Amino acid sequence: MGSTARKVSLTGIKPTGEPHLGNYIGAILPALELADSYESVYFIADYHALTTIRDRDLLRHYTRSVAATWLAAGLDPDRTTFYRQSDIPEIFEMAWVLSCVTGKGLMNRAHAYKAARDRNREAGREDLDAGVNMGLFNYPVLMAVDILIMDADVVPVGRDQVQHVEYAADIAGAFNSVYGDRFKFKIPAAVIPDEGSAHTLPGTDGRKMSKSYGNTIPLFAPEADLRKMIRRIPTDSAPVEAPKDPDSAAVFTLLERFGEPDVVADTRAGLLAGGMGWGEVKARLTDALIARFAPLRERYETLMAQGSELDDLLAHGADKARKQTRPALERVRDAIGIG
Amino acid sequence: MGSTARKVSLTGIKPTGEPHLGNYIGAILPALELADSYESVYFIADYHALTTIRDRDLLRHYTRSVAATWLAAGLDPDRTTFYRQSDIPEIFEMAWVLSCVTGKGLMNRAHAYKAARDRNREAGREDLDAGVNMGLFNYPVLMAVDILIMDADVVPVGRDQVQHVEYAADIAGAFNSVYGDRFKFKIPAAVIPDEGSAHTLPGTDGRKMSKSYGNTIPLFAPEADLRKMIRRIPTDSAPVEAPKDPDSAAVFTLLERFGEPDVVADTRAGLLAGGMGWGEVKARLTDALIARFAPLRERYETLMAQGSELDDLLAHGADKARKQTRPALERVRDAIGIG
Repeated sequence: MGSTARKVSLTGIKPTGEPHLGNYIGAILPALELADSYESVYFIADYHALTTIRDRDLLRHYTRSVAATWLAAGLDPDRTTFYRQSDIPEIFEMAWVLSCVTGKGLMNRAHAYKAARDRNREAGREDLDAGVNMGLFNYPVLMAVDILIMDADVVPVGRDQVQHVEYAADIAGAFNSVYGDRFKFKIPAAVIPDEGSAHTLPGTDGRKMSKSYGNTIPLFAPEADLRKMIRRIPTDSAPVEAPKDPDSAAVFTLLERFGEPDVVADTRAGLLAGGMGWGEVKARLTDALIARFAPLRERYETLMAQGSELDDLLAHGADKARKQTRPALERVRDAIGIG
Repeated sequence: MGSTARKVSLTGIKPTGEPHLGNYIGAILPALELADSYESVYFIADYHALTTIRDRDLLRHYTRSVAATWLAAGLDPDRTTFYRQSDIPEIFEMAWVLSCVTGKGLMNRAHAYKAARDRNREAGREDLDAGVNMGLFNYPVLMAVDILIMDADVVPVGRDQVQHVEYAADIAGAFNSVYGDRFKFKIPAAVIPDEGSAHTLPGTDGRKMSKSYGNTIPLFAPEADLRKMIRRIPTDSAPVEAPKDPDSAAVFTLLERFGEPDVVADTRAGLLAGGMGWGEVKARLTDALIARFAPLRERYETLMAQGSELDDLLAHGADKARKQTRPALERVRDAIGIG
């Protein structure tokens, strides 16, 4: 795994939707930059997605799609470690071990679980655990294993995910206090990445692009679909002739982000002067996105094809990861008196 | 696994103490009889024991000791399937899968968890989850996997364990209702074995022999220890000359169970007539136990020796079990869209 002096960073990617532009700018690019300064580990958390996705074809599609997206976006599987969580059986055995040193009280206070209870309370349900499955409740333990088994020093996460890393540190501490004379986990730390403008992207309604707002633009939709989708983005109904404020419309803000500078300047001037409709801006945005992402799309589509090298790349990544996870589990088994 | 027409029975053995005479009569012998009518599967639930045992040497010792005891008692590893839970990685991955279809509410109502809360309530603790670890809380899911992954038809359990089999059936049903078009688990049933006199043994105080009463006699203590231990069993203080009621003393009841008929008859007569002290009865009981269990003890000690065939036998059993668990996990992964 390269120089041992470098610290290890770990990034988990939950395959629960089609990758969109906001993911690319806000998550994928900053995560890929980590490989310059860290021994970088990326994994697709397909078994985490199982807590919510019960459609097998969809889960399989999202898993492949997310893997292909990150590779197309520049993830270098030789320089980093990149694998599917479900290819690492050691993770699940270690999850049992760590559950035995994890107090249930810690899980009672986990954000995602408490949010589910709040939703039940607001809906007037008597059983606050209604609809909560044990996968959701156990989630923080599995996430702790994801982190600890890879010996991660840092885990870059959004603010809403910091608790997971704190829990991993707590659980590591609990294990270390019982079995630390024979084996100690490294205590990981959360790193909250720069959330400046370079890493946030407005969605089609001007708010931050996010699946939960329904304002996303997919990275790799077929071109015809993408064109149709962008044409449907709501804009004001000013006639073509009227002068317009470019900065009032998300479609222009997005064009500014992805278009060539001369196209952006020409569009701004056209809107201010009048005589340019939003339809034209949308067409230019679509063209800009298609041009900008053409090489990525090509790589993505190659990887998504049946029989592509995607499966081999993931298998290779799993082999690499298991060089770490197998001895890690062996050390833990030895420490606890199993086997 | 022999004839496919025979139903599969599964017996889990939790290694949390030294095997005693009560285990032998109440659990081991009846479980070994199952091999006559069922395709019988036995496993040592060492990862279940981890929820309570945090001393690595003790956990390892109990695991080996329990395995050696069952083999010494007649478990035939060629005719049955006998393995250590921790040698079957598929169990832990499947535990994650099944946790995702298991409602948390089911776990909230599990007997062992509720008992832990009751103990906290009685102790006046505000936090009813105090001291409850996630291993204890997840226990019924792991037990469901133990049963379902081996395709068990029947699980012989004591009355206090019936809920675990019911939970396994519930969890199988939950999985089947979501993914049943591609894969269905068999629904297992609990079988409550005969609890007649042949399968119960009084302890040294006359109550049922049980670790929780502290009235056990170990199966394989060194002879000198056994002799000393039996000498210390409390009896009444009637003088040697006095006539005694044989049936008033557990030491005689135990001698009746394990002694040769002529020795038992002679002892009964001697006690009734007077002139025989309890010390003599204890000596005869010790001799009877030593004679009766000599062949088992020899086999046990051979298996417990460093470098014995015990590890090979367990490895062989794990290979046999994984011929079932590997394809079972593969079918489940295919059904849920993983891999």
